[in-house]
Amino acid sequence: MSKRLVVIGGVAAGMSAAAKAKRSNPDLEVVAFEKSRYVSYGACGLPYYLAGWIDDVEKLVARTPEKFAKQGVKALVRHEVVEVDYEGRRVKVADLDGGREFWEPFDYLVVSTGARPVLPPIEGVHLPGVFTLRQLEDGEAIMSALHRAQRTVIVGAGYVGLEVAEAFRARGKQVTVVELAERVLPAADPEVSALVHEELTRNGVQVVTGTEVESLTGLGRVQAVQTSAFEIPADLVLLAVGIRPNVGLATSFGVATGPTGAIAVDEQLRTNLENVWAAGDVAESVHLVTGRPYWLPLGDVANKHGRTAGTVIAGGLASFKGVVGSAVTKIFDLAVAFTGLSEEDARKAGFDAKSVWIKSADRAHYYPDPHPFHVKLVYEGGSGRLLGAQVVGHQSDALRIDVVATLLHRGGTVEDLRALDLAYAPPFSPVWDPLLVAANQAR
Amino acid sequence: MSKRLVVIGGVAAGMSAAAKAKRSNPDLEVVAFEKSRYVSYGACGLPYYLAGWIDDVEKLVARTPEKFAKQGVKALVRHEVVEVDYEGRRVKVADLDGGREFWEPFDYLVVSTGARPVLPPIEGVHLPGVFTLRQLEDGEAIMSALHRAQRTVIVGAGYVGLEVAEAFRARGKQVTVVELAERVLPAADPEVSALVHEELTRNGVQVVTGTEVESLTGLGRVQAVQTSAFEIPADLVLLAVGIRPNVGLATSFGVATGPTGAIAVDEQLRTNLENVWAAGDVAESVHLVTGRPYWLPLGDVANKHGRTAGTVIAGGLASFKGVVGSAVTKIFDLAVAFTGLSEEDARKAGFDAKSVWIKSADRAHYYPDPHPFHVKLVYEGGSGRLLGAQVVGHQSDALRIDVVATLLHRGGTVEDLRALDLAYAPPFSPVWDPLLVAANQAR
Repeated sequence: MSKRLVVIGGVAAGMSAAAKAKRSNPDLEVVAFEKSRYVSYGACGLPYYLAGWIDDVEKLVARTPEKFAKQGVKALVRHEVVEVDYEGRRVKVADLDGGREFWEPFDYLVVSTGARPVLPPIEGVHLPGVFTLRQLEDGEAIMSALHRAQRTVIVGAGYVGLEVAEAFRARGKQVTVVELAERVLPAADPEVSALVHEELTRNGVQVVTGTEVESLTGLGRVQAVQTSAFEIPADLVLLAVGIRPNVGLATSFGVATGPTGAIAVDEQLRTNLENVWAAGDVAESVHLVTGRPYWLPLGDVANKHGRTAGTVIAGGLASFKGVVGSAVTKIFDLAVAFTGLSEEDARKAGFDAKSVWIKSADRAHYYPDPHPFHVKLVYEGGSGRLLGAQVVGHQSDALRIDVVATLLHRGGTVEDLRALDLAYAPPFSPVWDPLLVAANQAR
Repeated sequence: MSKRLVVIGGVAAGMSAAAKAKRSNPDLEVVAFEKSRYVSYGACGLPYYLAGWIDDVEKLVARTPEKFAKQGVKALVRHEVVEVDYEGRRVKVADLDGGREFWEPFDYLVVSTGARPVLPPIEGVHLPGVFTLRQLEDGEAIMSALHRAQRTVIVGAGYVGLEVAEAFRARGKQVTVVELAERVLPAADPEVSALVHEELTRNGVQVVTGTEVESLTGLGRVQAVQTSAFEIPADLVLLAVGIRPNVGLATSFGVATGPTGAIAVDEQLRTNLENVWAAGDVAESVHLVTGRPYWLPLGDVANKHGRTAGTVIAGGLASFKGVVGSAVTKIFDLAVAFTGLSEEDARKAGFDAKSVWIKSADRAHYYPDPHPFHVKLVYEGGSGRLLGAQVVGHQSDALRIDVVATLLHRGGTVEDLRALDLAYAPPFSPVWDPLLVAANQAR
């Protein structure tokens, strides 16, 4: 008899696991339950939908349930797994539109329940006009509210907050970003935050840092954001203060979480329970610089988790060794990319962290229309081991970060970076690549 | 008494060596002789000057002799070293404008005499209207001839030929490129050449491949390019069939060349003769994929050679381990980048070479204005060791090649590439980076 894989949560990791498992072992019966109306979508595209650059939210969907059906994968939307009977090898599914519940058996289970936005513990977060942005439905809701809103406030100046700030400005809205930390993009080091701050204000975003939001107020719908010092009138508020993994269902039947609060998995994405895998934003990875568990809830990691789990479930060989914390974000005309540890995080992790911060350009000094390119390199004193990098540049120039990411995977040093033969031509790089300039200055 | 460094040839490698040596050891007396009218220039920028994108050829100069003088480095232009008396530790210098010759003593010598264009052994190569492109003066000469020329022919479809084809099209000229090999950019594999060919014709360049030029003809000045099959009318002809290292002066006093014909050097850029270094286009490097001597006459390599030699001459520690053959070129709207060995070259070098060739995009499928991104990955059967890559993309997306270059430096495998945590965001990459797509498909 054929084995049965049940996938709980059908976005990036879940549908990658489902599709890969079925492709690798066509005898497998594969069914995925997703409580929202969409499967297999790129939530990272939501800010660009809000900006008006993508005309239909459904374009963010990579594959529809119909397409999955053709591949032999059953994907049911508006179906939520509400209970797992692990001993009985079955899950209880609620059909959110049909109103009925039913039990579904499994041999293998993938938990890919993702993450949810954190709501700050303040009054008014449930007022109409207050949103979070996580699922396609969130995007649709904001989109339909946006045409009636002129004054928008974004609480939180991380990636999502800043990407949406750009989107709202693209729509001609007044935008205020309020951040609790002393600076925007607090995961970055201060040099990077300063450039981002400048870019935001240059593009008409009001930026308020070091300020706690105390409540959201309004009659019938949100009208203002209250801080200790002042009140900001608002027609629409986006809460973007972070996310947490949706581990509730998993822990309810005995799946163990790790130190990050996400589900602990091995290199095959196995949880502590036999025949149960976890993948995507709900699961941990190993950070290859610190060697410790790390939570990196990003779409590309989710896809790799899913692919690895799917391969293993189908009986194949695959492993996911870990991450180095690479990410990139577009903030107006800047591209800001990260890998490894910031200087601050490196110190916190116990490293004797040193750094250089250099300004260079994205092309030869004589080539037209140059853009500045900044590199921060973080490395260990003495050994010169690379710990991380941050770059701020123009468009895909920022992908230079991947060179450092590649070295981080293997414990590379500043000396290794300095020795690299990187591609050069005047339209693409100064004759000394900015990364090499930084490496040459590192002592 | 202070030691004296004489540098023969003051472009990229020579002036890097001179400046670095002086900076590292201010007691050193440093003098550089350059036979052209310019020092320290980026010859790689010449096609963009010809395109009209850089208004003054002097903008290609990084530092003038006056600036070098302020740093304590004497740089004399229009001064050619015509003889080296190695035993006597002196060089004979011809002042090309003053007409006199004089002897100049040295303790340390850097040979950085660069490379020169190959002239095909055919009739007519010295006719007025026939050019090569290597030094700034060549650029100036072509520029002044260009306004009288409408029909241009470029012999040779390597980087230089194709970059100049774009430049001439940008100036509204009729352009025909004639290439002896079966395809354009013959150093690349055929898949890449095909895309480049298409881009050239889309931009109005006439491309003729597999065709030998038999002579250049004309009365008083060039009027046609003759091939075995037909004649191409021409007002201006650029010969871009390759370059050779200028080793004549060096070999005349006993400096040894290596198997590539360029000067053999160790990791400190020392030649076989004590106190004589060679750097830049006249010197070899080690190819880190094959482990064999390799000649990579590019500006970025020249700068690194020079910096290494300068450091060592000043008594410091530095080494240049080698290259992996990275390069990138802009051909109209395409950026074409290379690293390591092409599949063809890998086979010739004796590897059991396998490859994948994939087409992806430079951004998420839903993000506006996507461009195609192609990856060719070459690797060794069995071990999966990476041997090289070629990518064709849009603008600086092509710098993704540097990830493979980084892996090549350390003998990385397809498996290593597959495991990389590369930066992802919808404006910059599909959720599966094109390099990872290629790695996933490699068997």
